[in-house]
Formats: sequence, structure tokens, C-alpha cells
Amino acid sequence: MNTFNVKAYGTPSKDEDLNEMQIERREVSPTDIEIEILFCGVCHSDLHTARNDWGGTKYPSVPGHEIVGRITKIGSEVTKFKVGDLAGVGCLVDSCKECESCKQDLEQYCLNGSTGTYNGTDQHLQGHTFGGYSEKVVVTESFCLKIPENLDLKAVAPLLCAGITTWSPLKHWNVKEGSKVAVVGLGGLGHMAIKLAKGLGAEVTLFSRSPDKIQDALNLGADSVVISTYENEMESAKGKFDLIIDTVPYDHDINPYINTLNISGTLVLVGFIGKMEDALFTPPMILGRRSVAGSVIGGIKETQEMLDFCGEHNILPEIEMINMQDINEAYERMLKSEVRYRFVIDMQSLKD
Amino acid sequence: MNTFNVKAYGTPSKDEDLNEMQIERREVSPTDIEIEILFCGVCHSDLHTARNDWGGTKYPSVPGHEIVGRITKIGSEVTKFKVGDLAGVGCLVDSCKECESCKQDLEQYCLNGSTGTYNGTDQHLQGHTFGGYSEKVVVTESFCLKIPENLDLKAVAPLLCAGITTWSPLKHWNVKEGSKVAVVGLGGLGHMAIKLAKGLGAEVTLFSRSPDKIQDALNLGADSVVISTYENEMESAKGKFDLIIDTVPYDHDINPYINTLNISGTLVLVGFIGKMEDALFTPPMILGRRSVAGSVIGGIKETQEMLDFCGEHNILPEIEMINMQDINEAYERMLKSEVRYRFVIDMQSLKD
Repeated sequence: MNTFNVKAYGTPSKDEDLNEMQIERREVSPTDIEIEILFCGVCHSDLHTARNDWGGTKYPSVPGHEIVGRITKIGSEVTKFKVGDLAGVGCLVDSCKECESCKQDLEQYCLNGSTGTYNGTDQHLQGHTFGGYSEKVVVTESFCLKIPENLDLKAVAPLLCAGITTWSPLKHWNVKEGSKVAVVGLGGLGHMAIKLAKGLGAEVTLFSRSPDKIQDALNLGADSVVISTYENEMESAKGKFDLIIDTVPYDHDINPYINTLNISGTLVLVGFIGKMEDALFTPPMILGRRSVAGSVIGGIKETQEMLDFCGEHNILPEIEMINMQDINEAYERMLKSEVRYRFVIDMQSLKD
Repeated sequence: MNTFNVKAYGTPSKDEDLNEMQIERREVSPTDIEIEILFCGVCHSDLHTARNDWGGTKYPSVPGHEIVGRITKIGSEVTKFKVGDLAGVGCLVDSCKECESCKQDLEQYCLNGSTGTYNGTDQHLQGHTFGGYSEKVVVTESFCLKIPENLDLKAVAPLLCAGITTWSPLKHWNVKEGSKVAVVGLGGLGHMAIKLAKGLGAEVTLFSRSPDKIQDALNLGADSVVISTYENEMESAKGKFDLIIDTVPYDHDINPYINTLNISGTLVLVGFIGKMEDALFTPPMILGRRSVAGSVIGGIKETQEMLDFCGEHNILPEIEMINMQDINEAYERMLKSEVRYRFVIDMQSLKD
């Protein structure tokens, strides 16, 4: 398979900063499209992968799975896109397309293992996949998204991960006009959960540990804020929510939140991958048919629906633009929760 | 309110055996029916309540919430029943009928607190409710069930708790022809879960720690048994089940079972009320949209549907008959898991 080189930003090992490097992209096959990357969002997974926090990182590592850009080339069999169109790529670039999950448009749960946009096993070239911190990317048409033309392009990027990660559970657990939704944690995921749940017509509450988040949450559209360290506020929230989207990315005690679920309500974990050390207390679950669940990103069809919905309702994340060269500093600021609420890289800066 | 005395079997304190005593029943109000109790099933909750294992037991305590009998008297406004009909009473005898749960026929999740058949706050007389270890019971018509005439009456009793406790999650999580259901634990609840899931057309697997349960499970209708202490068997069960009904009544590690859920599958706890000390491992939940939920008994409408279904499919528990005077010994045998699978008291013995 023919390839070409592009400039990228990545790291050769877990202990080194990200820096400029060259990577290979394949020439478009009949079903591929080639995208000139204009903007790429910065996700916590980028940082954790670059630093091998979860283990299993393949080096060199080039992160980035919130990709938007303009199509520069298409394969002969491509039907959905043409050269010059905007296109997006999220967390996945391939899946088996044959398993029960793929047949149901749930590529994120592909039983044979979907291919991550970075750090996945490349299905076309040898080695592993490289993400969107790069000039161009080549992706199978069926894993590319159409971008509503009315949206501010640079802010669209984070929808491809932060957006779909919160949209998918909102839709799966049937949030609609009048639903009562709570969001735990106000970061990249949390602020999108508020906006999307509001867009769907829900009454939205933020759980936060810090009162200084109250005004931010209200500005983002939340109807109310419950300070989770105030016992009286937690007590008055008891039995209230149909769905809780828990975006907290570290181990924490979920029992107090379970108590705030309505009968048959569900708390969905989307942020913390690991062991929850606090003992799960079953009475509120059994005596109220409450559930604890997990959810990861979303399928391609669902991602397109989310983008179209955001286009119709003009829903976009709050972003802070950075240059590619600022990425190491941006990671440090993310670790200190200093970003409001998502960094987006202006990929023009990689050309400078 | 006029009352009358009946013979019952109960205990005056947590440290004493159950013995014969007298309790009061109310005379039927216009909406009540009076039932001569013919058979009463013996549930683990009876034992735990009598011995105050969960705290909160009010004494004297008269257990029993798997009640079937014949109607001896009806109030002037009773419409569903007539004198001489069979009738059943399960775990609930009253609820507020006004809250969101009651309006949805989910009296078991009444937001104002439903009234348990025993140890509940009596809504008609002062004090607490007394259960079915007694000659007669008087219950509001709307909490009484019709018994299909074709079923063996003495075996119907355990359907009122063990039956509905497993039926409700099977229905709520949409088990149907071809669903893959697993059951953890083969006791009173577990053996009903197998029979009811089979009745609904599911493929049913029992998880058990002991190979000596294999033949029993197959006899009850299970399609297969996975011995949960055999790693290779657990490994081959990975990703298989749409729903797991976990009937184990003590703390246990649910993580190995979560791994055997299919994408979007749910493990429902119906047996253990307490703290689950093993840390919950979130990756299988997040990366497969799997849930852990709880469920308790069922609503009155749903209980009637379950009884009618059992009538149509001739589904009944396996029972061992005892006399009322054998109850203390029966409790000891239950603690040693020696019952196959539910004790039922022949209430005629209380008259002897």
C-alpha cells in the first residue's frame, strides 16, 4: 500500500514531552477519504495515552481523536463525501462490521475490537494508528462524519468525543422533554452533558464539590447545582433524578448519588476506568430498582445524529484555542482542571 | 374498628422460638376481604424478621407473606371476589395509591412507603401488621390476588414472593423468546427464576459454586450450568448473557458475573441487602454498557400477570410441606440450605 509522510506531534516514550515528528499515512483506497486537519480537540485520554497511564501505549504515540477538517482527496467508491467538504473523525476509525454490535450500529462495542483513532492496531498499514495531532488523516468513509455547515468549526471538534460520550447515554436511557438529569463533575464531559441534556428538554442539575462552580454551571444552562459536600443539599436531592451522568475521572464514592436517583433511575459512569473501592450499598438499588451502568463514546450513526442535533440547536462546547506547540503545557493545565472546558488545537500552527 | 381474635404462630422476641399466640384481625370494612389461610410459604425474610437480623422488627412478630386461602367474608363494596373464591396475598397489604410509583402500578416502590404484610405499620388497626402464619387474614381487596383454579394450591403460595421477585426483573428487563438469562444461586428464588425464564422462552444457565447442583438445575429446566469456581467455565461464559438474576443472599463478588454479560446486559440483585465489599471494576461496565441493578418483589398488577402466566404454563415451585409446629426446625434447615426449594406450611395444622 502506498503511503506518504505528514508532520505530526507526538512522543517517542512515556517520559518525554510531545514534539514534532513525521508519520506515515496511507494513500486513499477506493473507500477512503483524506482530510486536511484544521482543528483537533484535546481529550484527557490523549494525555493518559501519551504518558502510558493506563498501560498498553504503543510508541511513538500521536494522540488526538476530536478531528475536524476539509477533504483533500477521496477514493473512487466514496459516495457520501466530495473533495472540499468538511468532515470529522472521532474515537474510532474501523471495526469488524460483522458482529452483533456492529450490525446494530454500536461500533464502539464491536465484539472483535474496534480500532481506536490512535493507539489502535492499524487495519491497513503495519503497526498502530496515529491520531489527529497531525496535518492529515486518511480514514474509511464509513467512519467519517458530516459537519453541519452552520456551526463554528473549531468548536465542533470536541463533540466527536466529549459530545458523543455524554449524548449516547442520554439517548440510550431515553432522556426527553421533562426528564430530570444530573451531571457529576464539570469538566469537558460534564459541561457537554449539561448542554446536550438541556437541548433534549431535560431539567438539569450539576453535582459539584465546589460552590465556585455554581455560576459556571448556571451559565452553561444548568437549572440548579447541588453541592455534594453539603449534607442538607444531598438530602433534599434524594429520589429526584431519572438519569445521572457521572463524568468524574477518578475513584469516588457513588453511593450518595445513587440515593438521589428516582425509582428505576440509572447512574451512568463515563469517566472513571478502574476499581471503585467504596463498598456498593445495595438497599437503595434493590428497594428502588436503581441501576449503576457504564457507557463509552457512541456509534458512528449515533455520532452523526448528535452532530446534526447540535447543528439544529446550535450546541457547542466552550473551548480555549491553543497552538500545537502549547500541548505539553496544556496537559499540565488539564491535570490541574484549569481548562474551561476543552482545549482545541489550531492545526494551522503545525505548519508554522 | 371491630376486631376478632385468631390463632397465629409467632415470637415475642428475637431470641425465642416461634410458638402459638393470639392476634387481632379487623372485621372486614366495605373494601376488605377475609381469607381463611390454607397454605403459607416460608421465605428467608420470615426468619430474618423473626430474629431481627435486619433490625427494626416489631414484636410480637408473626411472619408469612406467601399466603393462599379461601374467602370467608367480603365487604359490601368488594367487586373482584366473592365468598368461596380462592385468593392470595403476597408481601404487601397497602400503599398510598397516590404517588408516582403507585400510579404506575409499582406499589412495591411506593414513595410514601408501602405496608408489608408483616412488620409493617398497620393502616387500619393500631400497631404493626401480622403475617400469614395465622388462621385468617383481612386485606383490602385491591391487594388480593386471584389464583388460577388449575394450579395445585399449596404450591401456589411461594409464587407470591419467590415467584414475583424473579418475575418482575425478567419482565422489566424484557426477557423473551431467545433471551439468554443466567441465574446465580439455586434456592427458593433461583429455582423460580429458572422456571419463569424458561417459561418466557429464554435460554437459561445456572451459575453455581457446587457441581452437585448440576443435575438439579437441569431437572428444573436449565439449559446449562456454569460452575463459578472453575475459571475455564467462567471464561467461556464471557459476554454471553442479556440478563443475570443474582439471588445470592449474602455478600459476594459480582465482578466475575459482570464479565459474562452481553453488551448492554444487566445483572439484577434480588437477594443481598447490604454492602458489597468487593471493589466494583468499571471497565467491563463502561466498555460494554453493562449495568448492575436491584429489584424487589413486584406490583399487584404484575403479580396477577405472573400468577395468570403460571396458570397458563403450569409453572409451580418445588415445595416441601411442613406443619406449623415444625417452623423452628424448618428455619434451621433453611439456614443450612437444606430445603428443595421452598417450605410451605399446611395451615390446617394450626387448628390441630
